[in-house]
Amino acid sequence: MASPPRGLPISFIVLTLFTFLPNPATSLRTSFIKLPGSDGSRSSSAADTYCESWRLAAETNNAGTWDVIPSVCVDSVAGYLNGDQYGSDYGVIADYALAFAETVQVSGDGKDVWIFDIDETLLTNLDYYRAHGYGSEPFESNSFNEWVVGGTAPAFEASLRLYNALKKLGFTIVLLTGRDEHQRSVTETNLRDAGYSGWERLLLRGPEDQGKSATNYKSEQRSKLIEKGFKIRGNTGDQWSDLLGFAVADRSFKVPNPMYYIP
Amino acid sequence: MASPPRGLPISFIVLTLFTFLPNPATSLRTSFIKLPGSDGSRSSSAADTYCESWRLAAETNNAGTWDVIPSVCVDSVAGYLNGDQYGSDYGVIADYALAFAETVQVSGDGKDVWIFDIDETLLTNLDYYRAHGYGSEPFESNSFNEWVVGGTAPAFEASLRLYNALKKLGFTIVLLTGRDEHQRSVTETNLRDAGYSGWERLLLRGPEDQGKSATNYKSEQRSKLIEKGFKIRGNTGDQWSDLLGFAVADRSFKVPNPMYYIP
Repeated sequence: MASPPRGLPISFIVLTLFTFLPNPATSLRTSFIKLPGSDGSRSSSAADTYCESWRLAAETNNAGTWDVIPSVCVDSVAGYLNGDQYGSDYGVIADYALAFAETVQVSGDGKDVWIFDIDETLLTNLDYYRAHGYGSEPFESNSFNEWVVGGTAPAFEASLRLYNALKKLGFTIVLLTGRDEHQRSVTETNLRDAGYSGWERLLLRGPEDQGKSATNYKSEQRSKLIEKGFKIRGNTGDQWSDLLGFAVADRSFKVPNPMYYIP
Repeated sequence: MASPPRGLPISFIVLTLFTFLPNPATSLRTSFIKLPGSDGSRSSSAADTYCESWRLAAETNNAGTWDVIPSVCVDSVAGYLNGDQYGSDYGVIADYALAFAETVQVSGDGKDVWIFDIDETLLTNLDYYRAHGYGSEPFESNSFNEWVVGGTAPAFEASLRLYNALKKLGFTIVLLTGRDEHQRSVTETNLRDAGYSGWERLLLRGPEDQGKSATNYKSEQRSKLIEKGFKIRGNTGDQWSDLLGFAVADRSFKVPNPMYYIP
């Protein structure tokens, strides 16, 4: 491994899948790092280890598409979400995002955009998911829409901090969400109640966006911004489909979400 | 948040940076998730929490380019690498990779390629890094090259298992490494001693590749494979620069490496 020069914009393609397979036997000619629980047993501690590995695989998009969290991991995911680690993970990512933002030469013409997703990015729906198995139950749109209409989702502290700091730096804030256009009013009210203000645009799924994958819908919306002369400097979302596709930001920040996956 | 249809290849651009900033004060109108240690104090437990967050930020490429691991995280990273979690994380990713590989229609003409990086992907240099502060010391090419020439790096169990399973499925294995061409012989011997065999090509940096970023060098090599009619189905590496850029694989798998970052 030589030490190469630094720094490059990069792109990445992934496909999707979720399965967990047993370990086939292997024959080795030398020592190797052993996996825990490779004899098939899974103690409580081994389950914790596995669930940490699953969460890392999900966050890095190694897991690809998945429908519900592994049933063995409900306690582990709940512990993560209800403990300090979840908020800490958000805070560290917000710090990296802000450090990057401070290096951007903001032109002052209002064309330097930072995009935020809403659900699990600006607002937390943890109270809803806490009552629905932390992502272990299949997504149920009726009850989730009821929750959205309730309009009581709180802000993430780290996201609000980042949001306000970006405004102060002169970025134009665009909110790009998979929520439907008919949820515009309740979404605006919820955002304001949670402490957010001063966004330039709130982009929701219109009738023409129905049936599109989140990756396509959001890429198209970013593309339209670029056509209008905006420069998408940064993008923050909890889903890879918020960040990937085409017309991507100069830099993208993936905040954690071990509860659901939207392709 | 509506529930969109599933499944899409996606691409992703990131830039790079590493800084850790203090939390500016924020004023809120409602409740939010609190970060631990936001008063500036950092107990041993808070340091652990931070270091877990740093590791996640590094693995997800949120941290961008970084030179050495945070000094406060040496114990945490050492604990991760020497404990069960590191091997478990590899194993789970290998399982996802294999599950994906089993869905690929391998044509039988030898054109379906799976690419592996070598260092920290097929072979572990943990013994070297254990003696050099687990990534807390700046990279020192002389001593690392001595280690490489020694040729004693063991295999990761999970990588060897994946490697052999992919061969059995009929994939053509290509090894693509940042090691220099003059290290070909010692690298081949080390790989064979560690249990690997039957690769189709071993691609190392030639004189014309010196000075190129890893992302560019590896993208160019993948591009040449595609020009020769190969289809790059999968790619496994410990660095984002193994996986991103252009001519990327149908699906890429990022194995963990909290010790160093190569752009």
